[in-house]
Amino acid sequence: MGTICTFGEILLRIAPEKSGEKINQTDIFRITAAGSEANVAVALSNLGKSTRCISIISNDIIGDKIMRKIRESKVDVDYIAQKSGSTGIFWNENGLSVRASDVIYDRAHSLFAETLLDKAFIEKALEGATWLHASCISPAVSKIACDNTIAIVEMAAAKGIAISTDLNFRKKLWKWTKSADEIKAVYEKIASVCTCIIGNESDYQDSFGISGEYDYIAKQIFDRFPNVKYIAASNREAFSASDVDWSGRLFTRENGIKEYLSNKYILTSICDRVGTGDSFASGIIYGLNTFEDKQKTVNFAVALSALNHTTIGDFSYFTIDDVEKTINSGGNGRILR
Amino acid sequence: MGTICTFGEILLRIAPEKSGEKINQTDIFRITAAGSEANVAVALSNLGKSTRCISIISNDIIGDKIMRKIRESKVDVDYIAQKSGSTGIFWNENGLSVRASDVIYDRAHSLFAETLLDKAFIEKALEGATWLHASCISPAVSKIACDNTIAIVEMAAAKGIAISTDLNFRKKLWKWTKSADEIKAVYEKIASVCTCIIGNESDYQDSFGISGEYDYIAKQIFDRFPNVKYIAASNREAFSASDVDWSGRLFTRENGIKEYLSNKYILTSICDRVGTGDSFASGIIYGLNTFEDKQKTVNFAVALSALNHTTIGDFSYFTIDDVEKTINSGGNGRILR
Amino acid sequence: MGTICTFGEILLRIAPEKSGEKINQTDIFRITAAGSEANVAVALSNLGKSTRCISIISNDIIGDKIMRKIRESKVDVDYIAQKSGSTGIFWNENGLSVRASDVIYDRAHSLFAETLLDKAFIEKALEGATWLHASCISPAVSKIACDNTIAIVEMAAAKGIAISTDLNFRKKLWKWTKSADEIKAVYEKIASVCTCIIGNESDYQDSFGISGEYDYIAKQIFDRFPNVKYIAASNREAFSASDVDWSGRLFTRENGIKEYLSNKYILTSICDRVGTGDSFASGIIYGLNTFEDKQKTVNFAVALSALNHTTIGDFSYFTIDDVEKTINSGGNGRILR
Amino acid sequence: MGTICTFGEILLRIAPEKSGEKINQTDIFRITAAGSEANVAVALSNLGKSTRCISIISNDIIGDKIMRKIRESKVDVDYIAQKSGSTGIFWNENGLSVRASDVIYDRAHSLFAETLLDKAFIEKALEGATWLHASCISPAVSKIACDNTIAIVEMAAAKGIAISTDLNFRKKLWKWTKSADEIKAVYEKIASVCTCIIGNESDYQDSFGISGEYDYIAKQIFDRFPNVKYIAASNREAFSASDVDWSGRLFTRENGIKEYLSNKYILTSICDRVGTGDSFASGIIYGLNTFEDKQKTVNFAVALSALNHTTIGDFSYFTIDDVEKTINSGGNGRILR
Amino acid sequence: MGTICTFGEILLRIAPEKSGEKINQTDIFRITAAGSEANVAVALSNLGKSTRCISIISNDIIGDKIMRKIRESKVDVDYIAQKSGSTGIFWNENGLSVRASDVIYDRAHSLFAETLLDKAFIEKALEGATWLHASCISPAVSKIACDNTIAIVEMAAAKGIAISTDLNFRKKLWKWTKSADEIKAVYEKIASVCTCIIGNESDYQDSFGISGEYDYIAKQIFDRFPNVKYIAASNREAFSASDVDWSGRLFTRENGIKEYLSNKYILTSICDRVGTGDSFASGIIYGLNTFEDKQKTVNFAVALSALNHTTIGDFSYFTIDDVEKTINSGGNGRILR
Amino acid sequence: MGTICTFGEILLRIAPEKSGEKINQTDIFRITAAGSEANVAVALSNLGKSTRCISIISNDIIGDKIMRKIRESKVDVDYIAQKSGSTGIFWNENGLSVRASDVIYDRAHSLFAETLLDKAFIEKALEGATWLHASCISPAVSKIACDNTIAIVEMAAAKGIAISTDLNFRKKLWKWTKSADEIKAVYEKIASVCTCIIGNESDYQDSFGISGEYDYIAKQIFDRFPNVKYIAASNREAFSASDVDWSGRLFTRENGIKEYLSNKYILTSICDRVGTGDSFASGIIYGLNTFEDKQKTVNFAVALSALNHTTIGDFSYFTIDDVEKTINSGGNGRILR
Repeated sequence: MGTICTFGEILLRIAPEKSGEKINQTDIFRITAAGSEANVAVALSNLGKSTRCISIISNDIIGDKIMRKIRESKVDVDYIAQKSGSTGIFWNENGLSVRASDVIYDRAHSLFAETLLDKAFIEKALEGATWLHASCISPAVSKIACDNTIAIVEMAAAKGIAISTDLNFRKKLWKWTKSADEIKAVYEKIASVCTCIIGNESDYQDSFGISGEYDYIAKQIFDRFPNVKYIAASNREAFSASDVDWSGRLFTRENGIKEYLSNKYILTSICDRVGTGDSFASGIIYGLNTFEDKQKTVNFAVALSALNHTTIGDFSYFTIDDVEKTINSGGNGRILR
Repeated sequence: MGTICTFGEILLRIAPEKSGEKINQTDIFRITAAGSEANVAVALSNLGKSTRCISIISNDIIGDKIMRKIRESKVDVDYIAQKSGSTGIFWNENGLSVRASDVIYDRAHSLFAETLLDKAFIEKALEGATWLHASCISPAVSKIACDNTIAIVEMAAAKGIAISTDLNFRKKLWKWTKSADEIKAVYEKIASVCTCIIGNESDYQDSFGISGEYDYIAKQIFDRFPNVKYIAASNREAFSASDVDWSGRLFTRENGIKEYLSNKYILTSICDRVGTGDSFASGIIYGLNTFEDKQKTVNFAVALSALNHTTIGDFSYFTIDDVEKTINSGGNGRILR
Repeated sequence: MGTICTFGEILLRIAPEKSGEKINQTDIFRITAAGSEANVAVALSNLGKSTRCISIISNDIIGDKIMRKIRESKVDVDYIAQKSGSTGIFWNENGLSVRASDVIYDRAHSLFAETLLDKAFIEKALEGATWLHASCISPAVSKIACDNTIAIVEMAAAKGIAISTDLNFRKKLWKWTKSADEIKAVYEKIASVCTCIIGNESDYQDSFGISGEYDYIAKQIFDRFPNVKYIAASNREAFSASDVDWSGRLFTRENGIKEYLSNKYILTSICDRVGTGDSFASGIIYGLNTFEDKQKTVNFAVALSALNHTTIGDFSYFTIDDVEKTINSGGNGRILR
Repeated sequence: MGTICTFGEILLRIAPEKSGEKINQTDIFRITAAGSEANVAVALSNLGKSTRCISIISNDIIGDKIMRKIRESKVDVDYIAQKSGSTGIFWNENGLSVRASDVIYDRAHSLFAETLLDKAFIEKALEGATWLHASCISPAVSKIACDNTIAIVEMAAAKGIAISTDLNFRKKLWKWTKSADEIKAVYEKIASVCTCIIGNESDYQDSFGISGEYDYIAKQIFDRFPNVKYIAASNREAFSASDVDWSGRLFTRENGIKEYLSNKYILTSICDRVGTGDSFASGIIYGLNTFEDKQKTVNFAVALSALNHTTIGDFSYFTIDDVEKTINSGGNGRILR
Repeated sequence: MGTICTFGEILLRIAPEKSGEKINQTDIFRITAAGSEANVAVALSNLGKSTRCISIISNDIIGDKIMRKIRESKVDVDYIAQKSGSTGIFWNENGLSVRASDVIYDRAHSLFAETLLDKAFIEKALEGATWLHASCISPAVSKIACDNTIAIVEMAAAKGIAISTDLNFRKKLWKWTKSADEIKAVYEKIASVCTCIIGNESDYQDSFGISGEYDYIAKQIFDRFPNVKYIAASNREAFSASDVDWSGRLFTRENGIKEYLSNKYILTSICDRVGTGDSFASGIIYGLNTFEDKQKTVNFAVALSALNHTTIGDFSYFTIDDVEKTINSGGNGRILR
Repeated sequence: MGTICTFGEILLRIAPEKSGEKINQTDIFRITAAGSEANVAVALSNLGKSTRCISIISNDIIGDKIMRKIRESKVDVDYIAQKSGSTGIFWNENGLSVRASDVIYDRAHSLFAETLLDKAFIEKALEGATWLHASCISPAVSKIACDNTIAIVEMAAAKGIAISTDLNFRKKLWKWTKSADEIKAVYEKIASVCTCIIGNESDYQDSFGISGEYDYIAKQIFDRFPNVKYIAASNREAFSASDVDWSGRLFTRENGIKEYLSNKYILTSICDRVGTGDSFASGIIYGLNTFEDKQKTVNFAVALSALNHTTIGDFSYFTIDDVEKTINSGGNGRILR
């Protein structure tokens, strides 16, 4: 089994350190590394997979801070390029109860947005890879980032590397083009080389213009994109920022389309929900690269991402053992001693 | 539209910094400014209204700390007098789950309790005002504070300024008189000049000796006090310190009495409920000074005060946009990005 | 009324300071004193009882830190011996929502595990005692700790001191013997001198091999151990680490067996559940030493331990007044002011 | 050797938690117990002496917080009376470098200021005492506090208990009388029954109107007050709030007056200097009650109080071992391992 | 006396919260507002002057956070424009002992760098002003910022407003031009309209190419720029990041050039030195607008900025009273009580 | 250039989080990884060298926490074995001013102390190594640890790997033998295979029984141990825990013995001095593996370790750039911007 590569921007995440404080109310913030694809690499590495991040950040102590955060989880950081410039930022004011989380981006002029990657660099970065994960956030960031994304997925496809994407439609980010057609074309280019697509109903509407129930969506996607073998979606029934019923589903193209529904977790007292979609994606990729059993895959993904609601920050530090205990207990929280 | 003035004591609020710690268990405390009427002024100012606090505090660095906390929200602090003496304190041990919050007052000898205000000062303080809010906590603090309160509401009434009060019956505070009649007389004096009264069932019982359902109370109040045009009440169905169903109602005297019931928020994981009554009052005052639509007014008040359960401290930093997003989402906590 | 003694190990409890952080994610930890029996002594002392801890810890500044934590609650610490060596540790990663708490023991070479106590020391330590509480954690720690436990309960029994135990079966700790028979023999020796046994269904299964409903268990225990007059059990219906329905029961041997069921608390937003079993035990011991009324005893125990879910750390700082307010309000969290 | 009693007000000390923050710049404060005489009792207890605090504080959770802080150091708190009312406060903004510490008192209406103590209470409180320490801060607080102070020192004198005082002239506190003669009369009443007087040059000027070099002052005091056997003074050569040369002297009335000069410590990076005068007094009292050697006494006092500049808060947690290591190393800070 | 306006960028300052931690070592940061000219406005306002900031920041909650920080000190913020975009950032890793502070700028794409200000806006912003302070950092930021700076100082000059600048040469910032001539031309344009220039020897070398002793520099400047009446320079003899001898000088053009040398402060245990140059400038501006006596002016400026080394953050919260106490005590740090 | 391996115990370091707090005064602690040889590996890796730690720790989340701390600095952790058991601890109460740091060890039963390492494991661990650093702390820990240390240095010697040691005599640790002869024999065995020995005067006295000036010591060591080519010593002139004059020297055996004296740093406001000896050793090893110039080597080592006094924790995060700036500025702390 080779390395799972991820490609995307690595950001500084700045959030009030104390739950219950607004950005304009406090001076004390927690600054960590995040970014959809780095989240996936870290989660998979902590589950024991060989992983590598492909990205570009600044070559100062701020960049070094990020490197450390990712390297500590044993992710290969040799293809996180470092250059003089600025690293993207997102501010997160964590929601609580009826108050939603608020996300503010400051990444328009980051190195990731403004640097066209060298083909040779990409080629070397993919060496030894058997899977590449690249979410559809990157193409939204800038024209250059979009070009880089398409370049890397196409090169990966050419090499026979399996590809997954997370649709992750981010309305606030799409600025270099507002044309729905142009956006759709980007999504289609990426989807056409993917083995696995992860996304929610609204993502399909916003990106491909497909709306309907999941089985309808799945059929459409499988029909349009013959390379796609798996379609996965988490299901968040949100009662408040602190209370969510959490489950997921996985469609496979076997003899016809088959749907695997996960068990459901009733999440209360949620600590930090940003990044939980990424840990769902991580669980799906983990399962597809580990288990024969697709039911096990979706159950694993849902349990992993349920756990990720209970810790601070985007990154998942959970081990296989943590996930299994949660599956076995149904998340009842009993202490084993 | 002129300035909304509030009159009342501004206190230091001292609370264990960490949720889940009792006062006798920790050395680390958060000390902020609070006080029912200052809370109202700050909330309204953050919603964009022109506001002014009228009060008296110490002229040392502790007083300056309070000034900064209020001034940062753009409230006019020119009529917060400063003198040598002490500023009132309340200790708050924040409740959680089955444990109720505990409030301890140390304000018997504060400048607010012991300083008789000059009529000229009050007169100048009301310049440009079109609304005055003065809760019925002040009269409980001391005989002098009671006299000041009556003086200011009567002067406001004489000037044609609309007046609101929050009944806020505080049994622990009424010490200068224990006579139910004397207390009732004070409440009646204030109510008789009010345009808007805010209070809960138990307040009406404790202050005016009126008990019954809200429609009965409303009728009594409207009958007795011909100046009153609005009666508002928040409705807290408390399951624990962390879990409350929260809604409100507003009675108007149009053609007969009309009742507007708000939608309801299911609040879980409550962060800090002290001061949420004040943000309900703020929302009502905001609505009455902004919207024609009374339904909108009570919905706004309930949403604003629902939000105030999710942040630390008495003060509301919420904007109109925050409130509207909450109303639109029903408080489901979904992230917009 | 004499002194309530407790015998058991006093540990350092090391836990990430911030809720939502895993042990491998943070550098900031809270280190406090804990240990099942110390918890009981502290809880009872804060309820006004005369109490004494009997134990052994290190004679350095770490030991002194522990002494201070226990002495501040007015517990007599004169029989906490201090010697050169190490103090046991347990790491606690606090659970949240679907994530269970994780407990790691580092106590195999502590002074408590390795020091055989002098009979004369034990004898003096029991002077003035009318009740001794010793949980069945101690015998699991080491052969020496087991011998010490049996020595002290037998000496107490010989002196006519009432004895309680908490079965507290800890699978991870039993290492010096894995023989179910040997373990059972230890439990039986202790039970045979007890007045009061506290434990859950699974404890009875693991220790005595008794399985079934509580009334069946109670009958078995009362039959086998004629000294036992009270059997108590807390009842934790766990939905997650943050959400539990909490109640308890007390069986007495009066004319036949009688069962007292407590009222139930719906605990949400739980802060820290480690040590809540000990505060249930404390409440039972408090009630048996204070009230005639057994119903009152079990209600008191359940309310006290419900409260203990709402504060950080094992120790209960609650007063009788706190417990009574909770019983009276049913835990609805309303502020009294 | 009997108990060392101290009499004086116990205060809440409120200080910005973070060094380098002003009171009006932060919301996070550390609230601990302090008060000149409590400081002395705690310091002596941590050095192994039997001690007792005599005072009066509130009977709420704030009072309990104070009790815990003092009890944990093994001080007898049975004669800290508790009543409904308020506990005195002092705010401390800790100095640094060229910025001096700032102290603000809020104690004019505390229980200590307003409660006349019962003679029977004082009598019982002094049982078993062989030494009483009462500083001259108390008489400044209020007329009642002054009367209490004189009552207790006179009762102690009548019982043959040795008495020490610390002159501690506090200009900001003397409000009930501004008459220099009246103040002097109080100081003389107290000095006349003392065995040991501690104070600096400026104190002698402000209280007794004696000015001059220390040997002149000592001669005057020994002449006027035949009971006085020891006069001690710390010597603070202050370069900044962070840098002080620290030494002391002790005069005894043996055959003529004899002066013992201590060695000197060059204190840099001072952490918190409030309360260091009290630990100098503690060291003197410790020495006089322990060593024959007066040189050892003053060296011990200076080392103990030098150490107290290196920890946060008024209280000294130092052991005899800590003091001796400092004396032996001359404070060079080398690690022993 | 009119309003003192300042013009310049307002930045977010991000620094590790804990002294002794590097940026790549911690996740906890303090984020406050800073910026040379905002520092001056805040310092002057806290000294009682009427002040106004002229600048542009983002119109989101981050911008609001900045507004609050400045408004709380009573600075007029009505001419801090707010627009969609990003706010400049500087990272500060605070030095200690032999380790120098490290500053990293991320402001190349801020609104201040990229927005050309409207003449009408500037004109209105200067209404009522009698003094304008604009440092020479702004022209370095971008061509647009340079143009804005020149526009505002020229308009101020045209209106007869006195102007001060701080040369503040920032090599890391000058990117839009590297031409020494072009830079010099900018400096000369600004200097030519100034009443008061503040700067150190190296600034004069870097900007005007003047090198030599201060009296030589002063002569040159007075000769070249006939409008200049005051030249001020702080004097930092740095032994380490924690230890500095701090003084200043002021040259005036009276009958010939006159130099006023301040007294000197020996600063140890320095808390945070970023921003102390700005408080020196503030003190000079304060003095020139308040005292006849120039010696008093420079002594005041040096004492104010000495104090600013002892608190966290760029902003000065010191009052006139704080400065005077420091002057009177020579910074010996003695507590007044 | 190959890999630099280090062999030694990796410990948890537990220290009060706040400077100025004693262990028995606080509940909040910082827990990080440390250990003399891990410190060296981390420091060298952050300077850009290829490094590897050889050790054994627990295989639980505590062990994982340590792995992350070391891995983030890019050290190869593949030969840190993980097994069930306990990880050694040292408590550090950080000194300040006249108060010395206090170190308490709890490592007698750690995996490092109790596990005999497999020869095959050691052999593989040394693959690719060109330098091995093993301090003489390990042999003190236990007989087994001593055997492991001798085994690894001898195997390294056999493979022609250069070896360095730090004498680091720790009196508190030597427990398995108290025989000075036996200890000396261990030291001699290690020294006989070393290329470089680092140690202070007292170390030579305690280990080899050599006392005298450094040139005498150097001569003795070079005479007795023909493999030794370098002898290095840091020089700490300690005035207090916060103030030290810091320098170093390096002896080489070229044509006769040659001594290189470093420049000296006056360290004030020291933040954390534990681990600075290890960064001196790291600097020496760095220099010997990088520079021809020995003077440069010792200057580098002293500057690196001077910097390490200014950050929290044992680990050095400094880059070559940081060290060079310090050398160039002489540690005057000036900001470059």
